[in-house]
Amino acid sequence: MTDQNPVFIPGPTNIPDRLRNAMHLQTRDHRAPDFVETFAPVLRDCKRVFGTETGEVITFPSSGTGGWEASICNTLSAGDKVLIARYGMFSHRWIDLCQRHNLDVQVIECAWGSGAPADKFAEVLSADNGHEIKAVLVTHNETATGVKSDIAAVRQAMDASGHPALLFVDCVSSLASMPFEMDAWGVDIAVSGSQKGFMLNTGMAILGVSQKALAAMETATLTRTFFDFRDMMAANANGGFPYTPPLQLIYGMKESLAMLFEEGLENVYARHHRLAEGVRKAVDAWGLKLCAQSPELYSDTVSAIYVPEGFDSNQLTEHAFNAYGVSFGIGLGEMNGKAFRIGHLGSLTDVMVLSGLATIEMAMADLNYPITLGSGVAAAQEYFRKTASKNCA
Amino acid sequence: MTDQNPVFIPGPTNIPDRLRNAMHLQTRDHRAPDFVETFAPVLRDCKRVFGTETGEVITFPSSGTGGWEASICNTLSAGDKVLIARYGMFSHRWIDLCQRHNLDVQVIECAWGSGAPADKFAEVLSADNGHEIKAVLVTHNETATGVKSDIAAVRQAMDASGHPALLFVDCVSSLASMPFEMDAWGVDIAVSGSQKGFMLNTGMAILGVSQKALAAMETATLTRTFFDFRDMMAANANGGFPYTPPLQLIYGMKESLAMLFEEGLENVYARHHRLAEGVRKAVDAWGLKLCAQSPELYSDTVSAIYVPEGFDSNQLTEHAFNAYGVSFGIGLGEMNGKAFRIGHLGSLTDVMVLSGLATIEMAMADLNYPITLGSGVAAAQEYFRKTASKNCA
Amino acid sequence: MTDQNPVFIPGPTNIPDRLRNAMHLQTRDHRAPDFVETFAPVLRDCKRVFGTETGEVITFPSSGTGGWEASICNTLSAGDKVLIARYGMFSHRWIDLCQRHNLDVQVIECAWGSGAPADKFAEVLSADNGHEIKAVLVTHNETATGVKSDIAAVRQAMDASGHPALLFVDCVSSLASMPFEMDAWGVDIAVSGSQKGFMLNTGMAILGVSQKALAAMETATLTRTFFDFRDMMAANANGGFPYTPPLQLIYGMKESLAMLFEEGLENVYARHHRLAEGVRKAVDAWGLKLCAQSPELYSDTVSAIYVPEGFDSNQLTEHAFNAYGVSFGIGLGEMNGKAFRIGHLGSLTDVMVLSGLATIEMAMADLNYPITLGSGVAAAQEYFRKTASKNCA
Amino acid sequence: MTDQNPVFIPGPTNIPDRLRNAMHLQTRDHRAPDFVETFAPVLRDCKRVFGTETGEVITFPSSGTGGWEASICNTLSAGDKVLIARYGMFSHRWIDLCQRHNLDVQVIECAWGSGAPADKFAEVLSADNGHEIKAVLVTHNETATGVKSDIAAVRQAMDASGHPALLFVDCVSSLASMPFEMDAWGVDIAVSGSQKGFMLNTGMAILGVSQKALAAMETATLTRTFFDFRDMMAANANGGFPYTPPLQLIYGMKESLAMLFEEGLENVYARHHRLAEGVRKAVDAWGLKLCAQSPELYSDTVSAIYVPEGFDSNQLTEHAFNAYGVSFGIGLGEMNGKAFRIGHLGSLTDVMVLSGLATIEMAMADLNYPITLGSGVAAAQEYFRKTASKNCA
Repeated sequence: MTDQNPVFIPGPTNIPDRLRNAMHLQTRDHRAPDFVETFAPVLRDCKRVFGTETGEVITFPSSGTGGWEASICNTLSAGDKVLIARYGMFSHRWIDLCQRHNLDVQVIECAWGSGAPADKFAEVLSADNGHEIKAVLVTHNETATGVKSDIAAVRQAMDASGHPALLFVDCVSSLASMPFEMDAWGVDIAVSGSQKGFMLNTGMAILGVSQKALAAMETATLTRTFFDFRDMMAANANGGFPYTPPLQLIYGMKESLAMLFEEGLENVYARHHRLAEGVRKAVDAWGLKLCAQSPELYSDTVSAIYVPEGFDSNQLTEHAFNAYGVSFGIGLGEMNGKAFRIGHLGSLTDVMVLSGLATIEMAMADLNYPITLGSGVAAAQEYFRKTASKNCA
Repeated sequence: MTDQNPVFIPGPTNIPDRLRNAMHLQTRDHRAPDFVETFAPVLRDCKRVFGTETGEVITFPSSGTGGWEASICNTLSAGDKVLIARYGMFSHRWIDLCQRHNLDVQVIECAWGSGAPADKFAEVLSADNGHEIKAVLVTHNETATGVKSDIAAVRQAMDASGHPALLFVDCVSSLASMPFEMDAWGVDIAVSGSQKGFMLNTGMAILGVSQKALAAMETATLTRTFFDFRDMMAANANGGFPYTPPLQLIYGMKESLAMLFEEGLENVYARHHRLAEGVRKAVDAWGLKLCAQSPELYSDTVSAIYVPEGFDSNQLTEHAFNAYGVSFGIGLGEMNGKAFRIGHLGSLTDVMVLSGLATIEMAMADLNYPITLGSGVAAAQEYFRKTASKNCA
Repeated sequence: MTDQNPVFIPGPTNIPDRLRNAMHLQTRDHRAPDFVETFAPVLRDCKRVFGTETGEVITFPSSGTGGWEASICNTLSAGDKVLIARYGMFSHRWIDLCQRHNLDVQVIECAWGSGAPADKFAEVLSADNGHEIKAVLVTHNETATGVKSDIAAVRQAMDASGHPALLFVDCVSSLASMPFEMDAWGVDIAVSGSQKGFMLNTGMAILGVSQKALAAMETATLTRTFFDFRDMMAANANGGFPYTPPLQLIYGMKESLAMLFEEGLENVYARHHRLAEGVRKAVDAWGLKLCAQSPELYSDTVSAIYVPEGFDSNQLTEHAFNAYGVSFGIGLGEMNGKAFRIGHLGSLTDVMVLSGLATIEMAMADLNYPITLGSGVAAAQEYFRKTASKNCA
Repeated sequence: MTDQNPVFIPGPTNIPDRLRNAMHLQTRDHRAPDFVETFAPVLRDCKRVFGTETGEVITFPSSGTGGWEASICNTLSAGDKVLIARYGMFSHRWIDLCQRHNLDVQVIECAWGSGAPADKFAEVLSADNGHEIKAVLVTHNETATGVKSDIAAVRQAMDASGHPALLFVDCVSSLASMPFEMDAWGVDIAVSGSQKGFMLNTGMAILGVSQKALAAMETATLTRTFFDFRDMMAANANGGFPYTPPLQLIYGMKESLAMLFEEGLENVYARHHRLAEGVRKAVDAWGLKLCAQSPELYSDTVSAIYVPEGFDSNQLTEHAFNAYGVSFGIGLGEMNGKAFRIGHLGSLTDVMVLSGLATIEMAMADLNYPITLGSGVAAAQEYFRKTASKNCA
């Protein structure tokens, strides 16, 4: 019976029926006109979500990891220097990926729970007089710690130092949930996926690519075929794909964009903020602490929450699943055992969030956490009440 | 986004994906062997849910109201006397239906919130020396008041008075959720439907019919064709239907029975009891009262809850829907404006129930009800924690 | 693997994905505003399909048989005289239904394969000076014989004799597939269902009801509750249902109407005519005969085809199913063993029809019918080619 | 209405309802036990389809092209020599992919319509005394020309020359449709995908990998992360994925394997052969020629058919789509304009094939091809009749 409980992992997200039905598609010919007529608007409309008018949108049938790989393989060459800060599991993995593709990765180590250090980037970039650094890589929303970084500040740091490096941003768990402004922030490649803010099945990496990044393809020598921008863009220009496209996901994407625009992107962001605030009120009420070090870093899509000293967060998430049939995110990397995560992104309501809070409270009580049953729920209820639109149907 | 919130109306119930997929069926030939092979076991397995070995199961493509009509039209004649107690909207409607079919309906008026008055039945039946009463009609679970009646006691009353009347029971909102023992209780016709405990779309009335009820067809002169037992049973005997069958519902029924048996009927009943108890703990914590007059009457599928003096329950349910996108049952008939209902039957989990409790709490707080936010949730959490199986997945 | 073969029974029809998805609906509250907003337009738009501006549309969760029952129970009284011609299994069943409801049924026996005998109706009605006949009942499309009757001619006959009887028409297998003009033909009750031209699951009877028929309710004393027009219309007036509505079918109906109107009713009729003509070309090429006696009687939704002397049509349909996994209609009643039927209504294309023709050809060849493989297909291909729109996608 | 016509492209294939429902899955936690319990058996059971007991199965959320890339990136280094024959568009693309990854590709040019030249491979390998050739790459089923190559013969050629090169085989459009014997044929990497014989959505590359290929990872220096065997196998060993898995496809795969095993792989192959033979009978009857040069090369999953001199095959496929709503494969590469393709793989029946043949006949007739309407259909019918199992349901 637990199939009907929502998931509170930070993606893949709960899929609304409308999108499940949109993906419940019989095979169609991907070389036929109706595919062309579907796909081109999808690419065009995605630009609006990325916040770009001058960039291109490129998709691959893969996960976000494939998107990371595509971002570097199309623009860089072995030995190229890239600058990146490590402050969570996903920035860590992107670093690892760069290293495995023989890039010269300059890592700024930061505390997990902090965000992208614009000031340190500024220092390093200012010192890089020879402009050896070809790209700065930033994780917009670090899913492991629930930290949202300030991309505009990174852009300012880059501009201030007059550095021509490309700016690549991982927005897998932020796009279509939190504001993202590719053009305004001067992002050259933004990497996202289908299974978070777009509320779809996993299986499509979605990239926003600036003209500057496209120009970098001219000299890039890292190898790629599956993830080649050029092949994809050439095929896309004719409404097609260089290989078999993930048809169902593309039709799903069409409907997802329609849903997002019907709600209004600003309203989508506001909804995520409201739900996240409700979760944070509960965390406060429990007397627990977020991994994110300060309010401006709080992510509106995922909260990573430290368990009290002496408790094991893995036991908590495991128990919540076994006893109540609800999935929460485990602590990743440094946070393993120390924190659990509540994903609050995608197709979610305050009502669903309350069920998650109530569940984790029960699980904490079962494991003798020093929390009061109902306290977090009540705090979230109070916040949700005050901020309810009174007409949500 | 509110499509993903559960409903807390007392039926139709939340449909699990497994059943939605089972009903997501392309047209098949209902005269082909695979239909025959599907339908016969469905009828057979339904008997187990009714608790009958000697009776038959008969289905019609209609709602429960059609089932009521079928029960009387196949067994009674104009002017026949029937005995029935009115203690809620659904017993009221059955009375009305009987009257419109020209039966001589002897009504025992009872307080809404009480159940079937076995003692009064006994009195009336004992006094009916001429055995003019042809049938006693009882609403097992009065969905309007959240009252479960004691059918075994009614049977005892009938037996004690040595009265040969048929016993018809409306178990629309109890079957497959609360224990039902057709044979043990000597029920002659039990009327249910697809959209409650069976967790399916509305559209199929499901009746358990005893041999005694079948025998009554010999003399019954009320007219019927669509609802004729004889036509249906003759066609069923060959694995078919006397007219076009509701194919998707029958395949859904097959899967629903599989789900019920996999969980185990006893476990299904226990789950409903646990969820209902959780709701009742919340009601207590809010300081509110159930319509059901005493604990032995408490229904495990629906709770009707009085709002405090001076409040309008319709405003409450309307507000819960408008502000939070969650549907609760309104107060029906006498209860209109005075009570709201929480349906807790079908495919439901403790986690889902908590979201319903949290929602109605917010709605009550918004309307200045004298309740404490989180209080009902906490009471239910406490109960759910203590009774969790620790392995629900 | 045979699930993907179309069915060629004359309903329920092949369900397009768009409608299957529309019916793949999670439970919603049928008392909530969105149901009201969905249901009212459905009723209104159905009128267009019936061809009525002055009548009402009333639906019941039942099959077409329930619709027949509703038509008489709401308007007639026991002993009322009705006039009807028997020329196939479905007119036969309606006669039987009337008799079982104690109507005085005057039957005109006609050859199966003929249609409604307007001239004989005229005779009988003219002779009925006392206007004892309360209703004339006509099967528009006799599904058993593939005969379409001329309702306008029946109306003329009635008008010519100045007879005030009601005119009831069974259009279960014609509505939304062949032209139907309720107002122009003076039809008082038109009975249809969800599972034919509307391409939906079985489970909803759909009736068009004239003001004159509604007025007849005043004096009608046949009993009914489930099928009561008054209860239904009163509830419908508030956007609701007098009992639990078949939610999924109503949402399906909304989408079905959208599909029909997008294609255009005239185009829907033209498509059915073209597909039927293709089938008839094949029948000609095989050297077989239709049951329908003359071209003006040919149905555009189903063809009943005589097998040659000495062959058993049941063996043919059974073999087609067993050997090729394709369902055709069997011969019903008088036609049993003598004819098989090809349903060509609902969501069907020329391409699908060709697969049906190719299949039955193989089955006939397997059973040594004197036909040439490919001959019927070629005849239909030739016709389809000449009439293809060249832009069907 | 044309959504219900089957597609006759050589993949993605028509998806049976059972698999569409299996993929119609709400998000579940991919770190939860039920995922682990689902995924491990999927990998294990895939081995049976590849025909390997000693190899491993590795999947990636990508298309078959990604599988090609994975095969070389995990086992080879820049400058490594590989041997491959070009005899169609898909062998051509694999060559291109190798070149773009800086392999030293020795290409044997063959006529399109021929298959893998075992004799020429033998010559080259025998001459390669220094064993500079690290891998031999073979397209098992060349989807562009409808040619099936003899992998066992290639293995014999390799063994005869005592050459230690790896053997990589593209079986994207043959696996689960035609016999494949990875162990018996000594295949080191077999590359397939979800959207052909497995009858699923596009989105998963599926590889069989021998222990010898795994050992080659030790020295391979081509870069990869998304497609890294090691990461994937390490995660798989714990029932997980190194990044977000394509949940719906994995559950779909579980059901696809169940369907394949229920039918029996031998029966699956026999069904494909029968359907292909039917198509070939039709081609003969039309007086047209297959691109495949000789019967032993005929593919059982796709037929590429030359149009007569003076006709344009693109016009034919375009017209078939526009006039009849049916998709066929276009001629690719050298075949463009000269040939069209009929895909006959996946979830397909003889009845569906006949609709495709009938359609393309109409399209050919419309464009004045010198063919007789119904001739191909009749030839296929004759063949299908003789080979029908008489119990296909």
